[in-house]
Amino acid sequence: MRIAVVGAGALGLYYGSLLQRSGEDVHFLLRRDYDAITSQGVRVFSTRGDFTLPHVHGYLTPEEIGVVDLVLIGLKTFANSSYRELVGPLVGESTQILTLQNGLGNEDTLAGLFGEERILGGVAFLCANRGEPGEVHHTGPSRIVLGELQHRDQARVDQLAAMFVKAGVECRTTDDLRRARWEKLVWNIPFNGLCALLLQPVNKLLAQKATRALVRMIMLEVIAAANAQGLSKPIAESYVGSMLEFTDNMGEYRPSMQIDREVGHPLEIQAIFRIPLEYGQMEGVPMPRVEMLSTLLEQAVQAG
Amino acid sequence: MRIAVVGAGALGLYYGSLLQRSGEDVHFLLRRDYDAITSQGVRVFSTRGDFTLPHVHGYLTPEEIGVVDLVLIGLKTFANSSYRELVGPLVGESTQILTLQNGLGNEDTLAGLFGEERILGGVAFLCANRGEPGEVHHTGPSRIVLGELQHRDQARVDQLAAMFVKAGVECRTTDDLRRARWEKLVWNIPFNGLCALLLQPVNKLLAQKATRALVRMIMLEVIAAANAQGLSKPIAESYVGSMLEFTDNMGEYRPSMQIDREVGHPLEIQAIFRIPLEYGQMEGVPMPRVEMLSTLLEQAVQAG
Repeated sequence: MRIAVVGAGALGLYYGSLLQRSGEDVHFLLRRDYDAITSQGVRVFSTRGDFTLPHVHGYLTPEEIGVVDLVLIGLKTFANSSYRELVGPLVGESTQILTLQNGLGNEDTLAGLFGEERILGGVAFLCANRGEPGEVHHTGPSRIVLGELQHRDQARVDQLAAMFVKAGVECRTTDDLRRARWEKLVWNIPFNGLCALLLQPVNKLLAQKATRALVRMIMLEVIAAANAQGLSKPIAESYVGSMLEFTDNMGEYRPSMQIDREVGHPLEIQAIFRIPLEYGQMEGVPMPRVEMLSTLLEQAVQAG
Repeated sequence: MRIAVVGAGALGLYYGSLLQRSGEDVHFLLRRDYDAITSQGVRVFSTRGDFTLPHVHGYLTPEEIGVVDLVLIGLKTFANSSYRELVGPLVGESTQILTLQNGLGNEDTLAGLFGEERILGGVAFLCANRGEPGEVHHTGPSRIVLGELQHRDQARVDQLAAMFVKAGVECRTTDDLRRARWEKLVWNIPFNGLCALLLQPVNKLLAQKATRALVRMIMLEVIAAANAQGLSKPIAESYVGSMLEFTDNMGEYRPSMQIDREVGHPLEIQAIFRIPLEYGQMEGVPMPRVEMLSTLLEQAVQAG
């Protein structure tokens, strides 16, 4: 399959490299790492085994790549205003677009630009960070839950999932993508938010009784908002316990939003906080702690 | 009146200096500023007029001061475990103890140590910071609301209030000290908390719609908890508007807790947050934002 990876941060580089290693025809749209990757390829350091791709197709513009079968989007959501410019030249009649981005609203925006029928979403549970140019460090899970924006063609979803599985990614499909997105938010909202605000990794928060309780209460607010959205099946409150346990095993992990703040990048507040808050408010679900966390983050960033 | 000032931070130095200038016999228990003050006195820079006291009685131990008529306590509340050691030697049969400290619980602790009948509380609305050793900078109001822990002798409260008024302090009395304390908390909890957490002065918070709304919601939580305490008269919700307006006039003011965090001092979280939260919880009043703010502050400080 001819694949373009748009937004080659840790997520895009990691999944793209696995797909190339597995035999797919992968083309990376690059910026920061262009020189390193086109001259030396990509090095992946992973708890599942390191590997190197000495030859990688890297580009600075999507026009050089041209039309592909699949666009894999790993952009930070604050760059979504560049969808048209970055994704447009890659899209032909039968191109599928798979966004692996965080938060809510990405599939809808893509559907508005390129047509709803070609849009898929993948919820990625991935612990990966960039290192030196051309390096990715993968330290934990790399699971993807895959679905269509409007569920209609299970065969193509299965085909994409099979491609990821062949590449070594634990990938399952869902016929309720929105539910999978909200499930991910149950983790993302408290941990991205609190770690970015306090500049502390997840284990620091989980080690204290009061912050652990706060994480739990924030998760319950997100679950309440999710379950007001008419999902195919409600998210059980016991999901909180699983997520805490899952995170206890992550050690000193710094969520992407914390890293973004540390290096002075914009934060994905809109996709991870404000849009979910709007969905909650539309259904009359109070989310005082999520709202407060969002406001504090915005204010913290505003000050520089 | 023979007065000992215990805890000669900005508040203790400011009020103590005004009382000395007005003719009272004031003795300061000092630590950081001992050398500067005993050699050069105190300089007060105030929007109500600067003045200097070239000769000031400064001491390093309360035993050197001995028994006084009035102990004026300006300690940070995290030093309350030193009450016995610092205040004990100053207390004789007819000594009155007036705490001008922040938050809840100070009068009760003093009553347990020295007897409830001699305890008074003053709620200070003061904008003052220390400068160089021996200097106090007073930039705004300096109002005190004065009352007894157990209201019983209005004459002595009036007498103390008259002393402050003579010294140039706007001072009124109350027969419901608890209500006055809660009123102060309506300001202290949001502004001390948010400014210390975000390391931003009050005007930065008030300039943004979302943080201004957050301040307002936190104030309403405090008012709800206060009004569940059986006060003589409830605190009106319109008090929020007055407090916001009051604070709009304070400019770039940094609350004491922000300064404490900036210079690495302990924060008054127990007196300003945790004890009020306990009082709220005892009456079943939910305070999710106050609880969250307290937890975030504790966690932020814990990390250094």
